[in-house]
Amino acid sequence: MVKCAVIGATGYAGAELVRLLLGHPEAGEILVSSSSSAGESLASAYPNLYGGFGSKTGSPLFVDKAEAVAAADVVFAALPAGHADEVAAACAAKGSLFIDLSADFRFGPDEATYTKWYGKSYAHPELHAASVYGLVELNRPRIAALGASKGPKCIGNPGCYPTASTLGLFPALREKLSETSGIVIDAMSGVTGSGKELTKSSHYAECADSTAPYKIGEHRHIPEIDAVLAQMAGSKVGSVFTPHLAPMNRGIVATIYFRLAKKGMKVEELREAYAGFYANEYFVRVLPAPLVATNRNVRLSNFCDISVHLAHDGETAIVVSAIDNMVKGAAGQAVQNMNVALGFDEKVGLSMFPPAF
Amino acid sequence: MVKCAVIGATGYAGAELVRLLLGHPEAGEILVSSSSSAGESLASAYPNLYGGFGSKTGSPLFVDKAEAVAAADVVFAALPAGHADEVAAACAAKGSLFIDLSADFRFGPDEATYTKWYGKSYAHPELHAASVYGLVELNRPRIAALGASKGPKCIGNPGCYPTASTLGLFPALREKLSETSGIVIDAMSGVTGSGKELTKSSHYAECADSTAPYKIGEHRHIPEIDAVLAQMAGSKVGSVFTPHLAPMNRGIVATIYFRLAKKGMKVEELREAYAGFYANEYFVRVLPAPLVATNRNVRLSNFCDISVHLAHDGETAIVVSAIDNMVKGAAGQAVQNMNVALGFDEKVGLSMFPPAF
Amino acid sequence: MVKCAVIGATGYAGAELVRLLLGHPEAGEILVSSSSSAGESLASAYPNLYGGFGSKTGSPLFVDKAEAVAAADVVFAALPAGHADEVAAACAAKGSLFIDLSADFRFGPDEATYTKWYGKSYAHPELHAASVYGLVELNRPRIAALGASKGPKCIGNPGCYPTASTLGLFPALREKLSETSGIVIDAMSGVTGSGKELTKSSHYAECADSTAPYKIGEHRHIPEIDAVLAQMAGSKVGSVFTPHLAPMNRGIVATIYFRLAKKGMKVEELREAYAGFYANEYFVRVLPAPLVATNRNVRLSNFCDISVHLAHDGETAIVVSAIDNMVKGAAGQAVQNMNVALGFDEKVGLSMFPPAF
Amino acid sequence: MVKCAVIGATGYAGAELVRLLLGHPEAGEILVSSSSSAGESLASAYPNLYGGFGSKTGSPLFVDKAEAVAAADVVFAALPAGHADEVAAACAAKGSLFIDLSADFRFGPDEATYTKWYGKSYAHPELHAASVYGLVELNRPRIAALGASKGPKCIGNPGCYPTASTLGLFPALREKLSETSGIVIDAMSGVTGSGKELTKSSHYAECADSTAPYKIGEHRHIPEIDAVLAQMAGSKVGSVFTPHLAPMNRGIVATIYFRLAKKGMKVEELREAYAGFYANEYFVRVLPAPLVATNRNVRLSNFCDISVHLAHDGETAIVVSAIDNMVKGAAGQAVQNMNVALGFDEKVGLSMFPPAF
Repeated sequence: MVKCAVIGATGYAGAELVRLLLGHPEAGEILVSSSSSAGESLASAYPNLYGGFGSKTGSPLFVDKAEAVAAADVVFAALPAGHADEVAAACAAKGSLFIDLSADFRFGPDEATYTKWYGKSYAHPELHAASVYGLVELNRPRIAALGASKGPKCIGNPGCYPTASTLGLFPALREKLSETSGIVIDAMSGVTGSGKELTKSSHYAECADSTAPYKIGEHRHIPEIDAVLAQMAGSKVGSVFTPHLAPMNRGIVATIYFRLAKKGMKVEELREAYAGFYANEYFVRVLPAPLVATNRNVRLSNFCDISVHLAHDGETAIVVSAIDNMVKGAAGQAVQNMNVALGFDEKVGLSMFPPAF
Repeated sequence: MVKCAVIGATGYAGAELVRLLLGHPEAGEILVSSSSSAGESLASAYPNLYGGFGSKTGSPLFVDKAEAVAAADVVFAALPAGHADEVAAACAAKGSLFIDLSADFRFGPDEATYTKWYGKSYAHPELHAASVYGLVELNRPRIAALGASKGPKCIGNPGCYPTASTLGLFPALREKLSETSGIVIDAMSGVTGSGKELTKSSHYAECADSTAPYKIGEHRHIPEIDAVLAQMAGSKVGSVFTPHLAPMNRGIVATIYFRLAKKGMKVEELREAYAGFYANEYFVRVLPAPLVATNRNVRLSNFCDISVHLAHDGETAIVVSAIDNMVKGAAGQAVQNMNVALGFDEKVGLSMFPPAF
Repeated sequence: MVKCAVIGATGYAGAELVRLLLGHPEAGEILVSSSSSAGESLASAYPNLYGGFGSKTGSPLFVDKAEAVAAADVVFAALPAGHADEVAAACAAKGSLFIDLSADFRFGPDEATYTKWYGKSYAHPELHAASVYGLVELNRPRIAALGASKGPKCIGNPGCYPTASTLGLFPALREKLSETSGIVIDAMSGVTGSGKELTKSSHYAECADSTAPYKIGEHRHIPEIDAVLAQMAGSKVGSVFTPHLAPMNRGIVATIYFRLAKKGMKVEELREAYAGFYANEYFVRVLPAPLVATNRNVRLSNFCDISVHLAHDGETAIVVSAIDNMVKGAAGQAVQNMNVALGFDEKVGLSMFPPAF
Repeated sequence: MVKCAVIGATGYAGAELVRLLLGHPEAGEILVSSSSSAGESLASAYPNLYGGFGSKTGSPLFVDKAEAVAAADVVFAALPAGHADEVAAACAAKGSLFIDLSADFRFGPDEATYTKWYGKSYAHPELHAASVYGLVELNRPRIAALGASKGPKCIGNPGCYPTASTLGLFPALREKLSETSGIVIDAMSGVTGSGKELTKSSHYAECADSTAPYKIGEHRHIPEIDAVLAQMAGSKVGSVFTPHLAPMNRGIVATIYFRLAKKGMKVEELREAYAGFYANEYFVRVLPAPLVATNRNVRLSNFCDISVHLAHDGETAIVVSAIDNMVKGAAGQAVQNMNVALGFDEKVGLSMFPPAF
């Protein structure tokens, strides 16, 4: 049993992570820390977890960040941009595993890109240089190697949009099935994607019964998507990404358009190529026709559902990739990373099936 | 490990039950049966369960009802009214446990009431006479005794509204804290309560952004509530019940009004009485002030959250009782009944915590 | 044509009022004022109104409150509690009609009750003494008399819950069909009821797919309901009121329980009594059986739909009363008050029919 | 005043049209016809319209289709595919204006395309040859000429997706700002788009909190979009169109991607080109930065809101086009067509502003 700490446990990703860890058979004590809720109990912030720590009438108090880090074998951080390095350094000093749910560790050594989009700099560049981007399906061997590593063990947990988008393109790019320019990624997200902060765009009366793109051409997940697609393709990829806010709580659905590299390829061939590519990935389900991927069928699970289609022009592939933004797009993927890094069965603690409704 | 059969597995309650059993450590093989989907695979009806039986690309076919019953140690039925007796008789002949999610076994020997409200009669009155109403918090000893019984083992799983309503009144009636007439139960349900059948009232454009009472004065849960309240109070109870449909997928919230038997009782006293009454019931959480029970905090769990309040007149108690209609109000309670009847830990397979959102 | 001013035009009630006045044939220039948006254009706060003032590319700037009041024939205020007296006094000095959408003018001379619940005092008690509570169906003659009055012309526009609740009880109380104690009013509101202020309870992820009572026993509409019911009945009425938040944008549905004064009264008799009572009220639609009142069918209109039912006990009437909280419960009723006070046809500017979906 | 007939008045588009005509000052008697509801009153099908025809307690009965056509000056039909020709012929014989809300008259003389996608043939090809596609912004002169025409007066009212999609591309194609291949139209629709028919995909529990593309590569609006874009561009245009279902009642939001014809064009230039192009179109609002078009701000109005953006690559324009699918996408556009054809002010009966929430 490993001791876990969740730093930033009152944010949405942190709270979801606590919930998943509560059901994880290898997770022992779970320490929670939150600067905004010091001295309060977890259940006062999240009444859904009332009674969730064994006691029917209580729940643990939030502890000091340093105390949580000192006690834990695995530290998860879900903090605003620019706050992860300090926690990462403390973990490195102690030799514990650090999994960051913010964007701080998603760019590896490429500080310039990080700084351009997030306006922060690296306090510990050497930790970033040694870190791994935690998309397990892409980087499993490197993540697995972290466990026995003598060096720092830092994982940058991927963003929600990049997870759905890049998994939807991975087979096409790696197998050279897609042209590498002119790709369009049109994605919808549920409102939890913008977290617990009270904003006009997440005010019920503003977003119910309504949908719209936002941050067009300037969303911070753009450089992350670009970097991962380039790694997958082995060369620069030209893509356009537009996020939309949809009136639903959870989920991301990315509708992805690319031109077939081989003219005349049939949709069945393309689907089989995808299915074969992911045959050994438990969490990626390439759906048989006529199913279409939707957030509904992956809700509360760590699955990424992918369906493969062809446009009416016969030349444009349309791939739909759906995840739960809070699970595979955040907390679940963090647990998956922990499982791989620590040598647990990758599915442990993530075996729940999505509810039908 | 016990073999389980779910008869009527394509209905909403049946599908939810399959999902819960998939995560139940004592459940072995799960046989699914559906008259409407014979020959199809489970995943074709419920793509959320795709890959849910061990195989990444397949899922079991629906089998014949008789085959499922013959093979199983525990048989759950989620069929329309009037179809349970046949299954119950087959189970009784075999000595297997039968848990019925319809209303057929909720009235015990009182066939007259059942016939009046459901228009059906008992094919096997002796099975009803021996059956137990499966509200564990009320009838735990009788349910537990079924396991070792030589006779028929039939459990009538309670309705969703009756579960929320009667748990919200149990302490008040048993402890004589409430007057026994003039009780008002005003309850809201999510749309899954009306199942998968396509009806005008569950058509998205008809029920989104809208709410209203329905079946006023004539909902079939009225006689069930009356019967259970009478058992709790030890005498007839005068109550009025009105269900409402609210634009949400899951959940029941019952707002219950009763006049205090003891004038001047303080809200803290009443809350403590409730908390004490349920101190040993894991699945009933009596919330501390100022929390208010809501379906949001019990979603996808087997919890019943109860909060206790006082009206402005100082004489009327207002108790709010919230459950997930598909879990504690149906499939979860069925699993809880199985656990108690077979001597498993009551929480096994039901330990998931509700998500915050 | 009358010049109109809307003070507090960026709040939800104010914005809805501007929208209604834009379609009112007797409304000339509309001046808008907002302390929080000085110098901005109306369309920057409400892009739905872009182009709404005749110019395709512009919309008026917010003007100073004093300027708006000075220029207008009719002044509407939708300000936080405690700010109406100053505006009312300016209107009284000028002889213009003042319609207040806050609670400040709902209690007439009863400053004690206002102070107890709102924590403010009257700056101009004489204006309150002369004011009229603007529930047209109750006080039409007094409102109509304001137009020709030499004194101050102040109308306190009713609250949303009180409008739905008291219209649902008016025939029963006036015609002595109901017992005057033990009345239960259980009401649901859409989220716009809590306005544009960003709060946790109106954060999408907190209120979607969820419903719960709030402010149990302490909602500020309680004393207003009590006062109006007493006026309707001619004596004190004992009632309990509980508001709920439901995941919908607009609407209030009040489910009201009262015991029949005359045992054995049939539901048809009761329904006919209601229909006859409201026969000449255009905005109150007493629905024929088997229709049930719902916010869906009054959305965006000034209608109050009422349906009349009987509980299973044969002794308890259940009346459902539904309005759009932003129209009949706020801005529409304010326009109705203006129409009556200024001698316009009561329906002018309010003739739109609710959309079906 | 013109007499209007609505054939197929119980469908969603028909019901919305009746509601709009009820508020249209030039519309006199409105006859409603429905094969599924013969003998019933309009209010029994649409309780929102209760009292909507002058009588407080009644509403008109549905009349026979032939009777409605015979009596009316303007006939609107909202019938399933293949049923419009018969009505059109009756109107042509009588010289009355016929506006068809189905797809039957959207393809003019191109029967082959119609037959390929809808599986029906033309009963009266000559009526189709003389008909006009009723996108007023594209074909206003031809529509206006119909009024004085001696020949048949048949208008094919555009589909909802084609309206949003083609208005979003019209300036770019006509002004040669876009490349004419590689266009991607990714559109979301509210659930009313699939009408009142009870289907699994419009069952509340299936579509709430969920979103997904559907009919990928095979939606019937594809050929209509292709034809209109070609007319706008003056040559064939290569585009891909994917519809999505989003959990909202009304609205279409199309996110449109095209490559700029002129490299280096700035977003401000593009926006100004759009604004200039539509300067005299009342119902098309080209939004100033930083506003983004959304169905929320056009709801219940006949506006088409368009916002203009640039992707991060600097080469791809992203145009967002939003309408209310039931108004500008169906019933409102039909009224707009009537207004133009009969020489009324184009805005008459369509002057309502969208509510903010």
